[in-house]
Amino acid sequence: MMFSAKSLSEMNVCVVGLGLIGGSLAKGLKGHCARVLGVEIEMESLLKAQADGVIDEGGLYLTALESSVDLLVFAVPVQTITALIPVLPEVFSGEMMVMDVGSTKRAVMDAYEGLPKRFDVLGAHPMCGKAEGGYDQSEAGLFNGATFALVRASRTSERAANIGSELVSVLGAVPIWMMADEHDRSAAAISHLPYLVSCALTAAAPEEAALLIGSGFRSTSRLAATPLSMMGDILITNRENILESMSQFIAVFQKLKTSLEAENFSELFEALGKIQRSHANLLSKQGKADQDEA
Amino acid sequence: MMFSAKSLSEMNVCVVGLGLIGGSLAKGLKGHCARVLGVEIEMESLLKAQADGVIDEGGLYLTALESSVDLLVFAVPVQTITALIPVLPEVFSGEMMVMDVGSTKRAVMDAYEGLPKRFDVLGAHPMCGKAEGGYDQSEAGLFNGATFALVRASRTSERAANIGSELVSVLGAVPIWMMADEHDRSAAAISHLPYLVSCALTAAAPEEAALLIGSGFRSTSRLAATPLSMMGDILITNRENILESMSQFIAVFQKLKTSLEAENFSELFEALGKIQRSHANLLSKQGKADQDEA
Repeated sequence: MMFSAKSLSEMNVCVVGLGLIGGSLAKGLKGHCARVLGVEIEMESLLKAQADGVIDEGGLYLTALESSVDLLVFAVPVQTITALIPVLPEVFSGEMMVMDVGSTKRAVMDAYEGLPKRFDVLGAHPMCGKAEGGYDQSEAGLFNGATFALVRASRTSERAANIGSELVSVLGAVPIWMMADEHDRSAAAISHLPYLVSCALTAAAPEEAALLIGSGFRSTSRLAATPLSMMGDILITNRENILESMSQFIAVFQKLKTSLEAENFSELFEALGKIQRSHANLLSKQGKADQDEA
Repeated sequence: MMFSAKSLSEMNVCVVGLGLIGGSLAKGLKGHCARVLGVEIEMESLLKAQADGVIDEGGLYLTALESSVDLLVFAVPVQTITALIPVLPEVFSGEMMVMDVGSTKRAVMDAYEGLPKRFDVLGAHPMCGKAEGGYDQSEAGLFNGATFALVRASRTSERAANIGSELVSVLGAVPIWMMADEHDRSAAAISHLPYLVSCALTAAAPEEAALLIGSGFRSTSRLAATPLSMMGDILITNRENILESMSQFIAVFQKLKTSLEAENFSELFEALGKIQRSHANLLSKQGKADQDEA
């Protein structure tokens, strides 16, 4: 099937959800496409985005938009995305490209499968964030230098792939093509496990120890503040990969504990030294600078 | 026994160890005491500190100093401190105040007990740091706004306590008086456990997941890069408190895992919501802004 040959700069792009990521997308896309439309169920954020001139047109619901949409980008929690996808054929007639920046990809890619062929789909996930979410925290530069995972469906056209790639470049991010399952496995280890570990660290800290809180604790525990609205959907849709990562974490942690318990310091320090080298190695494999640390 | 009534501004202060913390101490004390002396076994750092004008006199060893010392501050790993303390009576004659900024306090306070009464002692521990250590990373502003734990021995004079307090204020930090055991228990939960957790997170991350590394993983894993020269001594001298904190962490983490395994999401989200509130509560109990995040 043929899709319209518009370039990104000629497209009306609609961002669904104007929180930290969606708001930053709208701000970053401004000037790089024909019009930026915004859908946001929270009246206050919607009005702010309109007042800021970040969106050219806004609506509380998909059905409220008047302009035609060439590219729709979902920037809402995963289960909101999967609930909205089946609604698209009723709301939009004609051809349209649909993207999402959901935190897990298998569930979203499966939901895309149910759409008629006139929807050209592409999954995505930018690896960036801040300690605090919400429209007020959003900024055009959020994606600058960040890894931006892109996931094709079997139906994804080369045109959609190229538009996705262009969108990522326009935002200053680095596109990385991945399979949905590969993404979800990696995200479990690199993002979802760290969240749960931050939570357990927080819960293990007695209140009287708060006096000593310094940069180390703030840094390692900061993900505990991630909104549950987002994390809940992640835990539900990536449960098996997360459980697998948790088991691997426990195995390593337990081994360190056993060495410490046994006062086997040579074994302990050897393991920690090896981990230190693998930490440097892991970080060297990705290019993003630390600018987005919260 | 009577100690000289010099104020901090009249004292010759000798910092032993010119790494991140010691170098920052020397830089921060410059202009607030008579002379800043530095002892550093690494020739390169010593020469840099001299070339920078950060220290007025330097030596590779304690015995190399020519000026008299009124206040000695150890800024080296804990077991180097406890090894050097017994040497002090041979190197220095007369009265002297001795402080340390060692990461654990019980072992150091015990070592102080062996000193003759002419040494007026005070334990300390600033709660700040950076991802990277070393003299090159040191800066006068490192302690700005940081919590600075102060620990008295039974022999500590009021004068020494006041000098310690003044030193902390001069550095722009916030003095918090604590007992050694209380400090070590809290530090286990707030600092040493997070280090081990960062290490286990690193070890649980498969190399192919590195592509997705973003701010969350960098933040939660960054302590894995802490020099083993420092962490080794901490693990040895605070072993029991750390084991206790590790057990508490495992209990919480395992409970979260069990809920996720059982798909008991209402239980899981309730626990995570409670942790989120306790995270906000813990952070509100300490005043340091996030300026020192690495």
